[in-house]
Amino acid sequence: MNSKLTWLRNTMTSLNLQGMIISNPINIKYLTGIDAEGILLITRKENVYITDGRYIEYAHSVLTLFDEIIVYNITDVSQEDYENFFMFCENVGFEEHYVTYAKYKEYMHKFKINSLVETENIIEKQRTIKDEDEIKYIKTACEITDKCFSYMLTYIKPGMTEKEIAREIEKFYNENAEGVSFETIVASGENSSKPHTVPSDRKIQDEDIITIDMGCKYKGYCSDMTRTIFVGKVPEYIKPIYDLVLKNQQQVLDEMKDGSNTRMLTKNVENDFRLNNYDLIHALGHGVGMEIHERPFISSRNDSILKENMVVTDEPGIYISGQFGVRIEDTVLITKIGCISLTESAKNYTII
Amino acid sequence: MNSKLTWLRNTMTSLNLQGMIISNPINIKYLTGIDAEGILLITRKENVYITDGRYIEYAHSVLTLFDEIIVYNITDVSQEDYENFFMFCENVGFEEHYVTYAKYKEYMHKFKINSLVETENIIEKQRTIKDEDEIKYIKTACEITDKCFSYMLTYIKPGMTEKEIAREIEKFYNENAEGVSFETIVASGENSSKPHTVPSDRKIQDEDIITIDMGCKYKGYCSDMTRTIFVGKVPEYIKPIYDLVLKNQQQVLDEMKDGSNTRMLTKNVENDFRLNNYDLIHALGHGVGMEIHERPFISSRNDSILKENMVVTDEPGIYISGQFGVRIEDTVLITKIGCISLTESAKNYTII
Repeated sequence: MNSKLTWLRNTMTSLNLQGMIISNPINIKYLTGIDAEGILLITRKENVYITDGRYIEYAHSVLTLFDEIIVYNITDVSQEDYENFFMFCENVGFEEHYVTYAKYKEYMHKFKINSLVETENIIEKQRTIKDEDEIKYIKTACEITDKCFSYMLTYIKPGMTEKEIAREIEKFYNENAEGVSFETIVASGENSSKPHTVPSDRKIQDEDIITIDMGCKYKGYCSDMTRTIFVGKVPEYIKPIYDLVLKNQQQVLDEMKDGSNTRMLTKNVENDFRLNNYDLIHALGHGVGMEIHERPFISSRNDSILKENMVVTDEPGIYISGQFGVRIEDTVLITKIGCISLTESAKNYTII
Repeated sequence: MNSKLTWLRNTMTSLNLQGMIISNPINIKYLTGIDAEGILLITRKENVYITDGRYIEYAHSVLTLFDEIIVYNITDVSQEDYENFFMFCENVGFEEHYVTYAKYKEYMHKFKINSLVETENIIEKQRTIKDEDEIKYIKTACEITDKCFSYMLTYIKPGMTEKEIAREIEKFYNENAEGVSFETIVASGENSSKPHTVPSDRKIQDEDIITIDMGCKYKGYCSDMTRTIFVGKVPEYIKPIYDLVLKNQQQVLDEMKDGSNTRMLTKNVENDFRLNNYDLIHALGHGVGMEIHERPFISSRNDSILKENMVVTDEPGIYISGQFGVRIEDTVLITKIGCISLTESAKNYTII
């Protein structure tokens, strides 16, 4: 059995779970390598993956004997089989944050389980701590993102639309990685005042501010970086805000390490922004891994502790409605004594 | 209030629901036009949309006074507000097929609701019947898909990789529509034997078979079409299988109309395939609308009835493991007396 399934079985034992139904496809991919539609059952004696005709051949191609996972075609599983999977199991875990209420009721009926137990994101929590391979993949995704950004600095010219720029970034990622890890944001001029806007047909103008939020996937793992750049010159009225965002982004990098409290990290930025009459209107950051947004969530509403080998973002921003916005973001590896920024593009005033 | 919210309120009355919590963002977009993160509450007297700082400005820009929807910033909603929303409501509906078990428990606590009632996909079911505008948008998405396919027939040449072809399709859709409605499938040679494969670096060769499954979005609505084409010539051993798939695809088009039973439609194809020693290993089709896959699902496991103004796909396929596959798919509008194929690309042997 692979190390991740072994970890899961040990954890289940410690939680007094004799079985578990894993439904979240990202968790299944994490545990088995299979990226398809199906469910993974951890029964007393076996690991069972149930999928449909479309994925049987594929699932077998991913797995080795070493994985000790039996693949079933869903059409071959009888009601009796369902009832046998968890027979004599006192407690069977399920993913209450992924499984819908309707599915929960269906599981209860189909598997005839006495006690279906909430597992409180155990797999998602384990996924926050990256192993050596995972860190290597994210690091590579970040390096490709730095290269893409540095190419884009030579590519972007006044007269291009936000959409054209976003497509060039996507083309770069298609050719040098496994495509984008999320929809690229290119927000210029007043559009930059909306943190989650989509690229428009607005053309880049002289003296524009441009916020670019970009990331790619490499071996299934994501990168995430934002830079705010300028065309021709940095307008004087933007400088204090850019400086304030950068100061706080840097401050967070200085503070982040194994043991840091995510609420405190965020509160510090919120307070400094408020002292200057601005607000942090979104979270300070989030975990990055197989998903672009995953645990831990770094905001003043979340009281969690950063741990060694977590990978998270640090992305404060200030948005002046209808005028402009500034956001600066790195993807960061947490270590025992501090943190290492995996995205390394320059953050001083960048003028194209 | 718009016609869709009016419909919902009438339906709720007939189901004895005094309130409803709508959490599925696609349903919220359908009812309000808002494409963001938040929840929509239909209370006795008001329609309330609760979102966060990122989307407040956007939500206001989408809504008009006529919509009668009040937008709240989640940070301004107190525990007392939550308890007041559904005060004196006997039954409050929720989307049990979207809401997770954990969210269900959270709603119970937060809103202090006596009876949270399953609503059995009422909004998804209503979404299956398209109005005039929705049909217009899907029709346009299908026309763009036909144009893209006819362009691709002139573009594809031996030596190109599947990925290059998929990217050209995506480029076409980015320039002529709102991008793809799902990840384009370009499966050549033996890759075509896997119905859900992703484009690879395999180069197109002489005498190849190529299955292309493609679709775009227009005004938020999807198209979906598959064609299987040939390079240089149609190998004799493939012809009987191509003919069998096409015959059945055409037969289904002849049978589909208001009142058709989806299980029967599928069983007919399954039986004809089996008579020839093949199997239909996936569903026969699915609804198409704001989502690429939505109700109704057309398979032998689903007993539903097609209705006028539904838009569905008809996509039988045969796959010979490790050798090749053939799939032919149209997006189709159901009418009182028959159906109209909205994708119109030729389906006879197509040789490039």
